[in-house]
Parts: sequence; structure tokens; C-alpha cells
Amino acid sequence: MIIVADNIRITDQIIADAISQMNPVPIQKMVMECEKAGAQFIDINSGPLSRVPEKQMVFLIDAIQKVSKLPLIVDTANPRAMEAGVRTCKNAPIINGFSLEPSRLEKILPLAREFQTDIIGYLLYPNGHVPPDGDKRLEIALELFEQLKKTGIDEKRLIIDPVIVPLSWQDGKFQAMEVLYVIKHLPDIFGFPIRTIAGLSNLTSGRGHKAQKLIMEKAYLSMLAAAGLSMIMMNVFNRDTIKTVKACNLLVDEKIFAWEEMY
Amino acid sequence: MIIVADNIRITDQIIADAISQMNPVPIQKMVMECEKAGAQFIDINSGPLSRVPEKQMVFLIDAIQKVSKLPLIVDTANPRAMEAGVRTCKNAPIINGFSLEPSRLEKILPLAREFQTDIIGYLLYPNGHVPPDGDKRLEIALELFEQLKKTGIDEKRLIIDPVIVPLSWQDGKFQAMEVLYVIKHLPDIFGFPIRTIAGLSNLTSGRGHKAQKLIMEKAYLSMLAAAGLSMIMMNVFNRDTIKTVKACNLLVDEKIFAWEEMY
Repeated sequence: MIIVADNIRITDQIIADAISQMNPVPIQKMVMECEKAGAQFIDINSGPLSRVPEKQMVFLIDAIQKVSKLPLIVDTANPRAMEAGVRTCKNAPIINGFSLEPSRLEKILPLAREFQTDIIGYLLYPNGHVPPDGDKRLEIALELFEQLKKTGIDEKRLIIDPVIVPLSWQDGKFQAMEVLYVIKHLPDIFGFPIRTIAGLSNLTSGRGHKAQKLIMEKAYLSMLAAAGLSMIMMNVFNRDTIKTVKACNLLVDEKIFAWEEMY
Repeated sequence: MIIVADNIRITDQIIADAISQMNPVPIQKMVMECEKAGAQFIDINSGPLSRVPEKQMVFLIDAIQKVSKLPLIVDTANPRAMEAGVRTCKNAPIINGFSLEPSRLEKILPLAREFQTDIIGYLLYPNGHVPPDGDKRLEIALELFEQLKKTGIDEKRLIIDPVIVPLSWQDGKFQAMEVLYVIKHLPDIFGFPIRTIAGLSNLTSGRGHKAQKLIMEKAYLSMLAAAGLSMIMMNVFNRDTIKTVKACNLLVDEKIFAWEEMY
């Protein structure tokens, strides 16, 4: 699994303050720490509620690109912020993302064609709701795929996010197992090893002890790895979770085993 | 997964010394600690090399039964020690175990019929070698099943051990993934939810740092849980690994999620 830092997000108070003050330093410090912690991609989530979304996204990306060469994922539901962000990236980023929601289909998806980028597709209903099970998610994956092709985007550009939901939901555990099922079966359905991404922290959002949440996240992370997940979006400052990613990668890749690979 | 302590084994120096001195106290202390740590079964491995196998096994089981009511797994390749051990158990233990090795088929397997016990069957070649892949293991599972039925033992008595091998073997990683495949597919092949057991510590036996081994074991443990493993044989004194078992159980069982279940 490729490690994607989800740390640069508007819901982090440090990031929120830095954006509102247009101060790049705290953002740059955090990005350098993410890279040091093992991040291989940086997801940049500027939030949906901003009054000046383009300006904020451009500020964030400019700040980050001054200190890191890591590839970026531009994460916003705002099409203007997305376009401004993608234009600001020195190298083609990943667009995060689209779904069957009409606004995303119409305004986000075409940007992947225009800028020749990869794009993340969420397995959600057109109204943004989470499907009840894995089979429904697989159907939606095929619909996303059709939309992608209809828009004239190369099929290899698609990265599927099966959408992890909180365990605290009434059907949270069932959904967690269904997500594994989806990751396992997507390559068969598509007929090629389509890439997948998932946001780990969503699993344990809500109440609960931090220590328990971390144990649970690591357990589920290993299950995601065994199912074949390509990219894991996570808080890269959870050191033990990073170690678990490395252990999982060591288990599931095809090289001969060597403990040295864990570093 | 049900937690089986593998701690009571002749290769542990404390146990070896206690047996050679016929001193039950260190064994009883360890068993009580195992129970406190979360063990739900105790595997009793008296070793194959003893000059007085029956006496040692009876001594071990007697000692343990004085301090614990946990169900026992009698683990020896010596048929006389097995028979003496099973007779000594107050409640029917699990016999561990048989394989296609002629000596085990002829002398261990019939004990499960005689004493009406469950029995563990190893997916190994008749010469004791490990099969090269999962499909070969599944074939062997069916052969074990045939032997079991031929011996007049109820099919529900069988517990399959797919045999985890060290990652340090040349094909160790491949084998680790094949074991997951086997656990996943056994119920389809048998047509009922046949139970499975696996020895976790074997994964990381050999050289390597303790901390890395524990991370690797936990990662693989979660994969075993997702594959559907019924019983995990492990060092129950690894507290974090026990916590991982509980997190996995919480994920894969069918109850509504509650953090409280992790205790």
C-alpha cells in the first residue's frame, strides 16, 4: 500500500489557522513532518465551506510545493478550487474526487480529462448516501467507470474509493467487511488491477479511546492490505500504524522476505 | 478467534525444568497467568523427545487441572503420551494432532474415535513436508477428511491446521498468503463451516528483532481473522497481540459494534 497523508486538512486547527492567516510556515512544517513520517502522497483537503476556495487551495499548494516534491492529491468538492488547485500543481496531481452526485459528475470529472490526471471515484449513491452492501458498491463502481469512459478519460486513470464508514454506525461492522469484499472483487469485475484507495481514520471516527482506536485501525488496515488495497489515506503521525503498513507491504508484495525491508 | 495459549511447551526453559524436577508450581503459575492474559484454551506440548512421555504428559495435565478449568489441547506426536494425556483430562480435550503421516494416521487418529474428542489435522504431506501451495493444501484437507470418516469419526470433530511456515523460508511470504487462501476456501470445499487453527509464532521463528516480529505477527493475525480463522495458537503474554485478537473479533463477529467489547 502507498501511504497517503491525510494530515493537511482544514479540520486540523493548525492548518485552519495557517490558512486564515495565510501563513505558510505551519503548513510547511507539517508537510515536512509527514514526509519524514513516511508519507508518499499528500492529500490536500481545503474544506468545502471556504468563502475564497480558490485562493485557499492555491495558497496551500504553493506553500507545500516549496518544501516537498511529494505527489499531491487535490481534495475538494468545489470545482473552482479543484481547477485552481490542479493548475497550481507542478506535476499532475490526483483529483479527489468524483461520484455519481450530479455536481461532481458534471464539474469535477471533466477536470481529469482536461488536465490529464488520475481521479478518485467514490462508491456512493447519486445523493451522496452510502450503499447498503458490497454488491451495490460494485454496481456503482461500474457506473463510475461508464461515466469516466463517457467523459473520454482513460480507464487506467480511475482509482476507486469504496468508502469506509464509522464502526459506530448501526451496520458499521458489516460495512467494514463489505468494503474488504469490494476491494477483493473490483479487479475481477474490471478485468484489470484497478487501483483502490481508502481513508482509514473514518473507521473509528466518533467517540472512543485513542488507544483502542489505533489498535482497531491497525487490525483493519491489515485486512485492507490482504484484500489488495493500493493506497491508504491516514494520519501518518501514528507511527505504529505506519509500521503496520510496512509489515503488510512486506507480507503481500512478491519479493523474498527480509526483515530489513521493514525500515 | 478463540485464543489458545501455546506457552506450556517443553521448549520453554521454565516448563522444561519444572517437568524434569516434577515440580508443578512453575507450570501452575504460568497457566494461571495464561488464563489471566486471555487464554481460552491451553495447548500442552510435552515434546517428542522425552524418555518417559506418558509420565510427563500426565504430570503436566494433572498440574494444570488443579489450577485451571480451561479446556486443554494435548499436543504430542507420541501415541502413548497422547493416550495417557487424554485419559487424564477431566473433560474431553482436543487431540493435536494427526496428518497423512502413517504413524499419526495409525496411532493418533483412532484415539479421537476412542475418546470422542475433536482432533486437529495438519495440511502436510505424508512425509511431513509442507505442500508448495494452497491448492495442494486443500487436496490434503480432503484426504484428511476421508481418513477421519474412514476411521468412524464424526466430520464435525475435525479442526484443520493449514500450517504457517516461517517468513524466512525462501517461499515464506507466498506460503503466508496461501494459508489465507486455504482458510478462506475450506468451508466451500467442505460445505460446512469447518473450524481452523493456526500457530502464529511460527511465522516469525528464526532470526529477527522481537519488536518487528510482534508487528508482523499482528499484521498477519488480522489477515488470518479476516480469512475466517477459528482458533489462534499464540504466546498469550504478548499483550498487544491479544488486543489485536480482540479488535479482530470485534470486527468480524456479527454483533453491533461497541468499544466496550474490546475489554
